[in-house]
Amino acid sequence: MAANVLEEGISKKELQPEASPPDIKAMAEQFLATFYQAFDSDRTTLGQLFRPESKLTFEGETYTGPEKILLKYISLPFKQVVHEISTYDSHLTIDGTLLIVVVGRLKTDDNPPLSFTETFNLKQFGDGLFVMNDIFRLSLHNS
Amino acid sequence: MAANVLEEGISKKELQPEASPPDIKAMAEQFLATFYQAFDSDRTTLGQLFRPESKLTFEGETYTGPEKILLKYISLPFKQVVHEISTYDSHLTIDGTLLIVVVGRLKTDDNPPLSFTETFNLKQFGDGLFVMNDIFRLSLHNS
Repeated sequence: MAANVLEEGISKKELQPEASPPDIKAMAEQFLATFYQAFDSDRTTLGQLFRPESKLTFEGETYTGPEKILLKYISLPFKQVVHEISTYDSHLTIDGTLLIVVVGRLKTDDNPPLSFTETFNLKQFGDGLFVMNDIFRLSLHNS
Repeated sequence: MAANVLEEGISKKELQPEASPPDIKAMAEQFLATFYQAFDSDRTTLGQLFRPESKLTFEGETYTGPEKILLKYISLPFKQVVHEISTYDSHLTIDGTLLIVVVGRLKTDDNPPLSFTETFNLKQFGDGLFVMNDIFRLSLHNS
Protein backbone atom coordinates (compact mmCIF):
# COMPACT_ATOMS: atom_id res chain seq x y z
CA MET A 1 0.00 0.00 0.00
CA ALA A 2 2.76 2.40 0.85
CA ALA A 3 4.23 1.81 -2.59
CA ASN A 4 0.91 2.77 -4.19
CA VAL A 5 0.73 5.97 -2.22
CA LEU A 6 4.14 7.23 -3.30
CA GLU A 7 4.89 5.72 -6.66
CA GLU A 8 4.56 7.88 -9.74
CA GLY A 9 1.18 8.25 -11.34
CA ILE A 10 2.63 8.31 -14.84
CA SER A 11 5.87 6.70 -15.94
CA LYS A 12 7.76 9.43 -17.78
CA LYS A 13 10.67 8.88 -20.12
CA GLU A 14 12.57 11.86 -18.77
CA LEU A 15 12.22 10.56 -15.24
CA GLN A 16 14.40 7.49 -15.52
CA PRO A 17 16.27 7.00 -12.24
CA GLU A 18 20.05 6.69 -12.47
CA ALA A 19 22.05 3.63 -11.52
CA SER A 20 24.35 4.03 -8.50
CA PRO A 21 28.06 3.67 -9.27
CA PRO A 22 28.87 0.14 -8.14
CA ASP A 23 31.98 1.17 -6.19
CA ILE A 24 29.98 3.58 -4.00
CA LYS A 25 27.41 0.92 -3.27
CA ALA A 26 30.10 -1.64 -2.46
CA MET A 27 31.95 0.80 -0.18
CA ALA A 28 28.74 1.61 1.68
CA GLU A 29 27.86 -2.05 2.04
CA GLN A 30 31.31 -2.93 3.32
CA PHE A 31 31.28 -0.09 5.85
CA LEU A 32 27.84 -1.02 7.17
CA ALA A 33 28.87 -4.68 7.58
CA THR A 34 32.00 -3.58 9.48
CA PHE A 35 30.19 -1.07 11.70
CA TYR A 36 27.19 -3.17 12.71
CA GLN A 37 29.17 -6.39 13.13
CA ALA A 38 31.52 -4.53 15.47
CA PHE A 39 28.58 -2.91 17.27
CA ASP A 40 26.69 -6.16 17.75
CA SER A 41 29.66 -8.35 18.71
CA ASP A 42 32.12 -6.07 20.55
CA ARG A 43 31.25 -2.38 20.92
CA THR A 44 34.67 -1.58 22.42
CA THR A 45 36.21 -1.83 18.92
CA LEU A 46 34.08 1.00 17.47
CA GLY A 47 36.42 3.83 18.57
CA GLN A 48 38.86 3.18 15.75
CA LEU A 49 36.24 4.18 13.17
CA PHE A 50 36.14 7.76 14.49
CA ARG A 51 38.55 10.71 14.49
CA PRO A 52 38.97 13.67 16.87
CA GLU A 53 36.68 15.81 14.67
CA SER A 54 33.97 13.13 14.54
CA LYS A 55 30.52 13.88 15.94
CA LEU A 56 27.86 11.46 17.15
CA THR A 57 24.32 12.62 17.85
CA PHE A 58 22.50 9.78 19.58
CA GLU A 59 18.84 10.37 20.40
CA GLY A 60 19.47 14.12 20.34
CA GLU A 61 22.63 14.18 22.46
CA THR A 62 25.92 15.10 20.80
CA TYR A 63 29.46 13.81 21.52
CA THR A 64 32.71 14.72 19.77
CA GLY A 65 35.82 12.55 19.32
CA PRO A 66 36.48 8.80 19.54
CA GLU A 67 36.71 8.62 23.34
CA LYS A 68 33.36 10.27 24.10
CA ILE A 69 31.63 8.51 21.22
CA LEU A 70 32.94 5.14 22.36
CA LEU A 71 32.01 5.88 25.98
CA LYS A 72 28.47 6.68 24.86
CA TYR A 73 28.22 3.48 22.86
CA ILE A 74 29.59 1.23 25.58
CA SER A 75 27.39 2.91 28.23
CA LEU A 76 24.20 1.81 26.48
CA PRO A 77 22.69 -0.57 29.02
CA PHE A 78 21.72 -3.59 26.92
CA LYS A 79 23.84 -6.75 26.90
CA GLN A 80 22.87 -8.10 23.50
CA VAL A 81 22.02 -6.11 20.41
CA VAL A 82 21.26 -7.00 16.81
CA HIS A 83 20.94 -4.38 14.04
CA GLU A 84 18.92 -5.47 11.04
CA ILE A 85 19.22 -3.25 7.96
CA SER A 86 15.96 -2.85 6.01
CA THR A 87 17.25 -0.34 3.43
CA TYR A 88 20.28 1.84 2.90
CA ASP A 89 21.05 4.60 0.42
CA SER A 90 24.40 6.16 -0.37
CA HIS A 91 25.62 9.32 -2.11
CA LEU A 92 29.11 10.43 -2.98
CA THR A 93 28.94 14.14 -2.07
CA ILE A 94 30.67 16.93 -4.00
CA ASP A 95 33.09 17.18 -1.04
CA GLY A 96 34.13 13.58 -1.70
CA THR A 97 32.47 12.18 1.40
CA LEU A 98 30.30 9.08 1.42
CA LEU A 99 26.85 9.78 2.84
CA ILE A 100 24.87 6.71 3.94
CA VAL A 101 21.34 6.57 5.33
CA VAL A 102 20.18 3.35 7.01
CA VAL A 103 16.62 2.43 7.93
CA GLY A 104 16.43 -0.67 10.08
CA ARG A 105 15.34 -2.45 13.19
CA LEU A 106 17.18 -2.89 16.44
CA LYS A 107 16.67 -5.75 18.87
CA THR A 108 18.13 -5.44 22.38
CA ASP A 109 18.07 -8.24 24.97
CA ASP A 110 14.47 -9.43 25.35
CA ASN A 111 12.87 -6.18 24.19
CA PRO A 112 10.61 -5.92 21.14
CA PRO A 113 12.31 -4.62 17.98
CA LEU A 114 12.53 -0.85 17.50
CA SER A 115 12.63 0.98 14.17
CA PHE A 116 15.66 3.24 13.77
CA THR A 117 17.39 5.46 11.26
CA GLU A 118 21.12 6.15 11.21
CA THR A 119 22.98 8.55 8.92
CA PHE A 120 26.75 8.31 8.41
CA ASN A 121 29.04 10.77 6.66
CA LEU A 122 32.39 9.09 5.91
CA LYS A 123 35.62 10.76 4.92
CA GLN A 124 38.93 9.34 3.79
CA PHE A 125 42.10 10.04 5.80
CA GLY A 126 45.21 8.20 4.67
CA ASP A 127 44.16 4.70 3.67
CA GLY A 128 41.06 4.61 5.83
CA LEU A 129 37.44 5.73 5.79
CA PHE A 130 36.40 7.39 9.04
CA VAL A 131 32.98 8.28 10.41
CA MET A 132 32.91 12.08 10.58
CA ASN A 133 29.19 12.32 11.34
CA ASP A 134 26.93 9.70 12.92
CA ILE A 135 23.30 10.61 13.66
CA PHE A 136 21.09 7.97 15.28
CA ARG A 137 17.37 8.15 16.03
CA LEU A 138 14.66 5.70 16.91
CA SER A 139 11.64 6.20 14.63
CA LEU A 140 9.24 7.31 17.34
CA HIS A 141 6.40 9.78 17.01
CA ASN A 142 4.16 11.65 19.41
CA SER A 143 0.59 10.35 19.84
CA MET B 1 9.85 2.13 27.22
CA ALA B 2 12.10 2.86 24.27
CA ALA B 3 13.82 5.49 26.38
CA ASN B 4 14.49 2.91 29.09
CA VAL B 5 15.99 0.51 26.61
CA LEU B 6 18.50 2.98 25.23
CA GLU B 7 19.24 5.47 27.98
CA GLU B 8 22.51 5.15 29.86
CA GLY B 9 22.65 2.80 32.78
CA ILE B 10 24.95 5.08 34.76
CA SER B 11 25.19 8.84 34.43
CA LYS B 12 28.90 9.57 33.99
CA LYS B 13 30.52 12.93 34.44
CA GLU B 14 32.70 12.49 31.40
CA LEU B 15 29.68 11.68 29.26
CA GLN B 16 27.99 15.07 29.34
CA PRO B 17 26.41 15.74 25.95
CA GLU B 18 27.35 18.98 24.23
CA ALA B 19 24.95 21.79 23.44
CA SER B 20 24.34 22.46 19.73
CA PRO B 21 25.54 25.87 18.53
CA PRO B 22 22.33 27.91 18.36
CA ASP B 23 23.04 29.25 14.85
CA ILE B 24 23.26 25.73 13.38
CA LYS B 25 20.00 24.74 15.03
CA ALA B 26 18.29 27.92 13.83
CA MET B 27 19.57 27.43 10.27
CA ALA B 28 18.35 23.84 10.23
CA GLU B 29 14.96 24.83 11.60
CA GLN B 30 14.57 27.63 9.07
CA PHE B 31 15.52 25.37 6.17
CA LEU B 32 13.09 22.64 7.25
CA ALA B 33 10.25 25.15 7.60
CA THR B 34 11.02 26.49 4.09
CA PHE B 35 11.34 23.04 2.49
CA TYR B 36 8.28 21.35 3.94
CA GLN B 37 6.03 24.43 3.64
CA ALA B 38 6.97 24.61 -0.04
CA PHE B 39 6.49 20.85 -0.44
CA ASP B 40 3.10 20.80 1.24
CA SER B 41 1.67 23.96 -0.35
CA ASP B 42 3.24 24.19 -3.84
CA ARG B 43 5.76 21.54 -4.88
CA THR B 44 6.58 23.39 -8.11
CA THR B 45 8.65 25.90 -6.09
CA LEU B 46 11.09 23.26 -4.77
CA GLY B 47 13.43 23.37 -7.77
CA GLN B 48 15.09 26.60 -6.65
CA LEU B 49 16.49 24.84 -3.57
CA PHE B 50 18.65 22.52 -5.73
CA ARG B 51 21.70 22.98 -7.97
CA PRO B 52 22.95 21.08 -11.03
CA GLU B 53 25.17 18.88 -8.79
CA SER B 54 22.31 18.10 -6.39
CA LYS B 55 21.19 14.50 -5.92
CA LEU B 56 17.88 13.16 -4.69
CA THR B 57 17.43 9.52 -3.76
CA PHE B 58 13.73 8.90 -3.24
CA GLU B 59 12.74 5.40 -2.14
CA GLY B 60 15.96 4.05 -3.66
CA GLU B 61 15.79 5.88 -7.00
CA THR B 62 18.34 8.61 -7.74
CA TYR B 63 17.91 11.84 -9.73
CA THR B 64 20.49 14.59 -10.36
CA GLY B 65 19.87 18.30 -10.93
CA PRO B 66 16.93 20.64 -10.20
CA GLU B 67 14.86 19.67 -13.26
CA LYS B 68 14.83 15.90 -12.63
CA ILE B 69 14.44 16.32 -8.88
CA LEU B 70 11.50 18.69 -9.36
CA LEU B 71 9.95 16.39 -11.96
CA LYS B 72 10.18 13.51 -9.50
CA TYR B 73 8.58 15.55 -6.73
CA ILE B 74 5.74 16.88 -8.84
CA SER B 75 5.07 13.42 -10.33
CA LEU B 76 4.19 11.98 -6.91
CA PRO B 77 0.52 11.12 -7.34
CA PHE B 78 -1.06 12.54 -4.19
CA LYS B 79 -3.01 15.82 -4.24
CA GLN B 80 -2.57 16.82 -0.62
CA VAL B 81 0.41 16.16 1.59
CA VAL B 82 1.37 17.17 5.11
CA HIS B 83 4.83 16.52 6.58
CA GLU B 84 4.95 16.43 10.36
CA ILE B 85 8.45 16.56 11.89
CA SER B 86 8.85 14.39 15.00
CA THR B 87 12.61 15.01 15.54
CA TYR B 88 15.48 16.54 13.64
CA ASP B 89 19.22 16.59 14.29
CA SER B 90 21.83 18.77 12.63
CA HIS B 91 25.62 18.75 12.32
CA LEU B 92 27.97 21.28 10.82
CA THR B 93 30.41 18.99 8.96
CA ILE B 94 34.15 19.62 8.66
CA ASP B 95 33.49 20.46 5.00
CA GLY B 96 31.25 23.32 6.14
CA THR B 97 28.02 21.67 5.02
CA LEU B 98 24.91 21.46 7.17
CA LEU B 99 23.74 17.88 7.63
CA ILE B 100 20.14 17.47 8.83
CA VAL B 101 18.30 14.24 9.63
CA VAL B 102 14.52 14.36 9.98
CA VAL B 103 12.27 11.66 11.42
CA GLY B 104 8.61 12.36 10.84
CA ARG B 105 5.24 11.34 9.56
CA LEU B 106 3.71 11.97 6.19
CA LYS B 107 -0.02 12.19 5.49
CA THR B 108 -1.19 12.06 1.88
CA ASP B 109 -4.81 12.55 0.78
CA ASP B 110 -6.99 10.14 2.77
CA ASN B 111 -4.23 7.61 3.45
CA PRO B 112 -3.06 6.67 6.95
CA PRO B 113 0.13 8.44 8.12
CA LEU B 114 3.47 6.88 7.13
CA SER B 115 6.71 7.14 9.09
CA PHE B 116 9.59 8.57 7.06
CA THR B 117 13.20 9.68 7.40
CA GLU B 118 14.83 12.35 5.26
CA THR B 119 18.48 13.39 5.29
CA PHE B 120 19.61 16.71 3.79
CA ASN B 121 23.16 17.90 3.15
CA LEU B 122 23.15 21.67 2.54
CA LYS B 123 25.94 23.77 1.07
CA GLN B 124 26.31 27.49 0.69
CA PHE B 125 26.73 29.01 -2.78
CA GLY B 126 26.71 32.80 -2.92
CA ASP B 127 24.15 34.02 -0.44
CA GLY B 128 22.06 30.89 -0.45
CA LEU B 129 21.95 27.44 1.09
CA PHE B 130 21.29 24.70 -1.47
CA VAL B 131 20.32 21.06 -1.03
CA MET B 132 23.25 19.06 -2.38
CA ASN B 133 21.99 15.69 -1.11
CA ASP B 134 18.43 14.67 -0.29
CA ILE B 135 17.73 11.08 0.73
CA PHE B 136 14.14 10.08 1.49
CA ARG B 137 12.82 6.76 2.79
CA LEU B 138 9.64 5.52 4.32
CA SER B 139 10.37 3.58 7.53
CA LEU B 140 9.16 0.22 6.30
CA HIS B 141 10.50 -3.19 7.25
CA ASN B 142 10.10 -6.69 5.91
CA SER B 143 7.84 -9.06 7.86
